[in-house]
Amino acid sequence: MRRGRLADGREIIYYDERVVPTPPPIDRRPLSSDAPRPQVRFDPLAGEWVAVASFRQERTHLPPAGACPLCPSAPGRLTEVPAADYDVVVFENRFPSFAGAGYPLPEEAERWGRPEPAPGRCEVVCFSSDHRQSLGWLGRRRLRTVVDMWAHRTEELSRRPEVEQVLCFENRGEEIGVTLSHPHGQIYAYPFVAPRTRVQMGRASRHHQRTGTCLFCDLVRHETGDGTRIVARAPGWVAFVPFAARWPYEVHVYPTRHVGDLCRLDAGERDSLAELLSRVLPSLDGLFARPMPYVLAWQQSPVRAAPEAFHLHAEISSPRRSADRLKYLAGSETAGGVFINDVLPEEGAARLRTATPR
Amino acid sequence: MRRGRLADGREIIYYDERVVPTPPPIDRRPLSSDAPRPQVRFDPLAGEWVAVASFRQERTHLPPAGACPLCPSAPGRLTEVPAADYDVVVFENRFPSFAGAGYPLPEEAERWGRPEPAPGRCEVVCFSSDHRQSLGWLGRRRLRTVVDMWAHRTEELSRRPEVEQVLCFENRGEEIGVTLSHPHGQIYAYPFVAPRTRVQMGRASRHHQRTGTCLFCDLVRHETGDGTRIVARAPGWVAFVPFAARWPYEVHVYPTRHVGDLCRLDAGERDSLAELLSRVLPSLDGLFARPMPYVLAWQQSPVRAAPEAFHLHAEISSPRRSADRLKYLAGSETAGGVFINDVLPEEGAARLRTATPR
Repeated sequence: MRRGRLADGREIIYYDERVVPTPPPIDRRPLSSDAPRPQVRFDPLAGEWVAVASFRQERTHLPPAGACPLCPSAPGRLTEVPAADYDVVVFENRFPSFAGAGYPLPEEAERWGRPEPAPGRCEVVCFSSDHRQSLGWLGRRRLRTVVDMWAHRTEELSRRPEVEQVLCFENRGEEIGVTLSHPHGQIYAYPFVAPRTRVQMGRASRHHQRTGTCLFCDLVRHETGDGTRIVARAPGWVAFVPFAARWPYEVHVYPTRHVGDLCRLDAGERDSLAELLSRVLPSLDGLFARPMPYVLAWQQSPVRAAPEAFHLHAEISSPRRSADRLKYLAGSETAGGVFINDVLPEEGAARLRTATPR
Repeated sequence: MRRGRLADGREIIYYDERVVPTPPPIDRRPLSSDAPRPQVRFDPLAGEWVAVASFRQERTHLPPAGACPLCPSAPGRLTEVPAADYDVVVFENRFPSFAGAGYPLPEEAERWGRPEPAPGRCEVVCFSSDHRQSLGWLGRRRLRTVVDMWAHRTEELSRRPEVEQVLCFENRGEEIGVTLSHPHGQIYAYPFVAPRTRVQMGRASRHHQRTGTCLFCDLVRHETGDGTRIVARAPGWVAFVPFAARWPYEVHVYPTRHVGDLCRLDAGERDSLAELLSRVLPSLDGLFARPMPYVLAWQQSPVRAAPEAFHLHAEISSPRRSADRLKYLAGSETAGGVFINDVLPEEGAARLRTATPR
């Protein structure tokens, strides 16, 4: 691992697969070091913080492959990554929704109508220097490096005083609004517990009070026992379509052991996860014989939660409902929060089990 | 108002602007009366019901204008509306996410992993027989008919024993997945309180306990007092961009009087609302000089809630963030529930106030 700084002061970290004795190259671009200032606003009806970052309107939008800012730098073409090549690299997002030092935001804002600075950190993660690669096609070795990187970013970002939760995710495909086609993911270090996580923790806590067992562990046992929605297994891991899936194709990946976050996975579990992902992601691409748009996100324990309160899992959800149609969130989902799914979860799982990986 | 049945038994209701002495025409199509059976599944992690309706995959998708199923019927071309013309017409959705008699679903499902029938009702609402029309362009007279229809549907559907909440909404624009371009909306009569409404009611209840006032009324007072986010006013109504807007362009429309649902609006308030909508919706189209994709939805009191527990309002939200770009929900929104908005609410409101209506 090598650390450096970009020309405007943002941190860059190279996760190298073999020892590189030289320090990371210097970023020669003439960048201004004026850090953008995102803000958050409390929504009193939802009880949630919303980030407002108007400078993000200027972010790079679908550049031609020759102008990709995530490819390695070359003579005469300086990108976000100064190096001539890299394995996995992470750097602070130039257009962050959360940025800078501070303190966690309170769960309940006492005064409405006052924007607050949005502390935290947003990072960009490049999975490969090869513009045409994709997370699921990288092979077990590289996927293991990616898993280690996710774990290390979680560990390091969790130590910052303003960070309450670390969300590692990948948005893939122009169909869901991805503006750069280079294989990359993102990391959001939030200054609060994300609303979805807060709801899941609240429900798990009530379940534990009632039954004495972990809600997530019980779910995994239920899905493993039922079997009709299982997509793939690997030692210590299971991937299934959840019983009440919201998206046409949705796969949840759980460690069978109760583990709260990515840092707590042991070496065997990391290897096994890399192997599982190298099967599950290509099976999604096999469904319609083309790259599947999806959001892949790691749901993990908030930084200051008790280890038993949450159970690590990845949620992969795709809006593609047929070869040429997408599911959109419209009135029922947006206004009511009621999801309508057009694909039977058991059928989705069966199709994924038999899809030819791509 | 005239009532009839379509060939497969679905109800159709004509909201006529002048008295039509003849009964509604007969539907001559050879439709099977096999009612589709949507199901719901309880998600124990979210504590929410998800509707699963796989037959919806077959629904009509962007037909050419000459084959629009919502246009009036003509000799040799029978549509969903048997009449040769109509003002506003409502009929049961052929591809419903909720359908049939039953009982409300419990807030907490005791057993997971068992799909349940999804009682309730889904209706399609045509705002005009003219395929090229749009809700915002209909003028005050027709918009008043639409308001009366929304109120009447709410009143009638609320009397069904299985219905807990009535959501009247319009999805507009192919950009958000609308599959029929004819000017139309939908009504979902849910067998439970929608999750977003449940959250808002819980927060309003806590606010009331703490302060003795209505959270929604306080919000309206706050926005009216601040003024920077006001988009339009009409007697008894105010339209503003909420302080913590989630979408690039989002307008909330509130009656200034505390009213729980559409049925309780008096004649003056209905006229005034029609007039307000005939200004606000065209100003959205004026922003980028083209029809704006949006979801418009009425948040109203659940059927069995106390009248003071909720305050009627419409939420209009558009994902268009610039002339040629949309906001998509990706990792932070989908996985975390954390919204990132690229447009400053005060700037959005200023642009809407000065947009040339279209």
